[in-house]
Amino acid sequence: MTDVVAAFEQTRGEDAEESDAVAAIRTLVGVLRATQTSTIVGLSDELRGAAEALRESLRETSGMRVFVPVNAACEVFINYVTRIATDFPVGVAFDQVKTVLVQRGEIFAERLVKSRDRLASFGWKFVQDGSVIMVHGFSRAVLEVLRRAAAQGRNFDVIVTAAGGDGSKVADRLAHFGVPTLLVADAAIGYFMERVDTVILGAEGLTENGGLINHVGTLPLAIVARAHNKPVYVAAESFKFSRLFPLTQKELSEAGGGRVDKRDAEETPSPAPKLEPLGSVTSDYTAPEYITLMFTDLGVLTPSAVSDELIKLYQ
Amino acid sequence: MTDVVAAFEQTRGEDAEESDAVAAIRTLVGVLRATQTSTIVGLSDELRGAAEALRESLRETSGMRVFVPVNAACEVFINYVTRIATDFPVGVAFDQVKTVLVQRGEIFAERLVKSRDRLASFGWKFVQDGSVIMVHGFSRAVLEVLRRAAAQGRNFDVIVTAAGGDGSKVADRLAHFGVPTLLVADAAIGYFMERVDTVILGAEGLTENGGLINHVGTLPLAIVARAHNKPVYVAAESFKFSRLFPLTQKELSEAGGGRVDKRDAEETPSPAPKLEPLGSVTSDYTAPEYITLMFTDLGVLTPSAVSDELIKLYQ
Repeated sequence: MTDVVAAFEQTRGEDAEESDAVAAIRTLVGVLRATQTSTIVGLSDELRGAAEALRESLRETSGMRVFVPVNAACEVFINYVTRIATDFPVGVAFDQVKTVLVQRGEIFAERLVKSRDRLASFGWKFVQDGSVIMVHGFSRAVLEVLRRAAAQGRNFDVIVTAAGGDGSKVADRLAHFGVPTLLVADAAIGYFMERVDTVILGAEGLTENGGLINHVGTLPLAIVARAHNKPVYVAAESFKFSRLFPLTQKELSEAGGGRVDKRDAEETPSPAPKLEPLGSVTSDYTAPEYITLMFTDLGVLTPSAVSDELIKLYQ
Repeated sequence: MTDVVAAFEQTRGEDAEESDAVAAIRTLVGVLRATQTSTIVGLSDELRGAAEALRESLRETSGMRVFVPVNAACEVFINYVTRIATDFPVGVAFDQVKTVLVQRGEIFAERLVKSRDRLASFGWKFVQDGSVIMVHGFSRAVLEVLRRAAAQGRNFDVIVTAAGGDGSKVADRLAHFGVPTLLVADAAIGYFMERVDTVILGAEGLTENGGLINHVGTLPLAIVARAHNKPVYVAAESFKFSRLFPLTQKELSEAGGGRVDKRDAEETPSPAPKLEPLGSVTSDYTAPEYITLMFTDLGVLTPSAVSDELIKLYQ
């Protein structure tokens, strides 16, 4: 199954603007197209095997930030394909089924590609004229919302957190859109929150209960925004809806391969300072109570609506 | 008055373990000792002039972190000296008054030196056996509380935030005390808070309403701790009680010389990203509602008791 991983990496390299989830779906459509099996069960197994190989590889090499969205998209895709396949009447030739599935798979991938545009078409209206927005971490969805708001003539400033280097990338992009920015340290979110009108965040994944998995530092930012009564919006494509349901931060890292928490095992008292590599925690989990609204390609949702949409996806 | 600044810098250099406020008081005692004036009014003016020169110099060169405690200590000291001087009966020779003032000034300075020990003697009992403490920024008072708790046989772990390089200094000190530490990024305070039992913070200054001026990142940490129902303790010598009463973060930086907010003037929309030097904000202000208790040399106080103590100091 290493060819799946290679195919994924190749697709990913072809278009840097495309999200990892889209690359994963294109890879699975490739698996559909190339399959030698002649039964629907065989096909389903093959897709599941490919997704598992991809997940395993990402779990080891990429950490949460790639794993979570890829995992969510693969789950939704396999569920979608299996449902179409089992809906065919008995007696239809497998080759015919396969042709339809490949077509539908491509449509699915195209829909994913367009989902960022679609969520931005809802989200940009929430960027008020004359307001100050705070963002954290690199999110193409958030950038598209802001780009569109600027293109529609809204004037606003953006306070960008450093976020381990992501901040300067975001500030560069915003500068191209003509949006004034202020780059601030992660620790300064409290200091600057009083000037902020709106917080807009991206997502690595949305959880079953409407919570948010995103760049580490998202949780403190959302809590600080709530304490200051500032709205927190999340821009997330619906393929990021996942069936993860972490109750603690620790469960989150276990879901993503548990890389962070290997440390726990060795956390026996010792006088030497365990100088944790500062970047080892890449994501945190924000409970839905800290999120005001979500901009998705399905429309603007409250966090609790995510579960409803997930039920529709998987019913 | 540049000799005052030079004297301060020299005193400060003599003992790195001594806080800047103590160095400022020793400098003012030096002014007392060297005065050529022969009236109490003249002496008071001279002290005020010296304190103002010191403040001016620090405002320009050192930023909030030195300015706030030095300013608070000078205010309290001058108030103390003036009160003693005006309590003398009419007719006492000025030389005699001066001798007493120098003596009392030295006692005052010694009391300051001991105040850290004294607050630690109250504070260490709040470090529970088997608990996990989170700290932020370099504070000698917090280190003394933790050192004493460890010396008393309490076993605990400390999660130390990076805090712009202060974290590794703190972790080194704690290692010398035999305390296991975990150094984490500032953005990871949300991720790690679920494992924390107690947050202990230092202070650059306490405000008139019982709020806290401290290393930037203190406010988000205190808000996140509150959202998780974790107690937030502040270790602060009473000479850090100040008559500042900031209502916003911006007022805070204005009090400290407004260095941060020069930017505001030029915050006209421009397409070039204003890449704020990330370290330009050094302190933030935390409202008293986020503070559980304060360890001071006057005892363990609630934030609201700070105003009472200030009234006593200045009445």
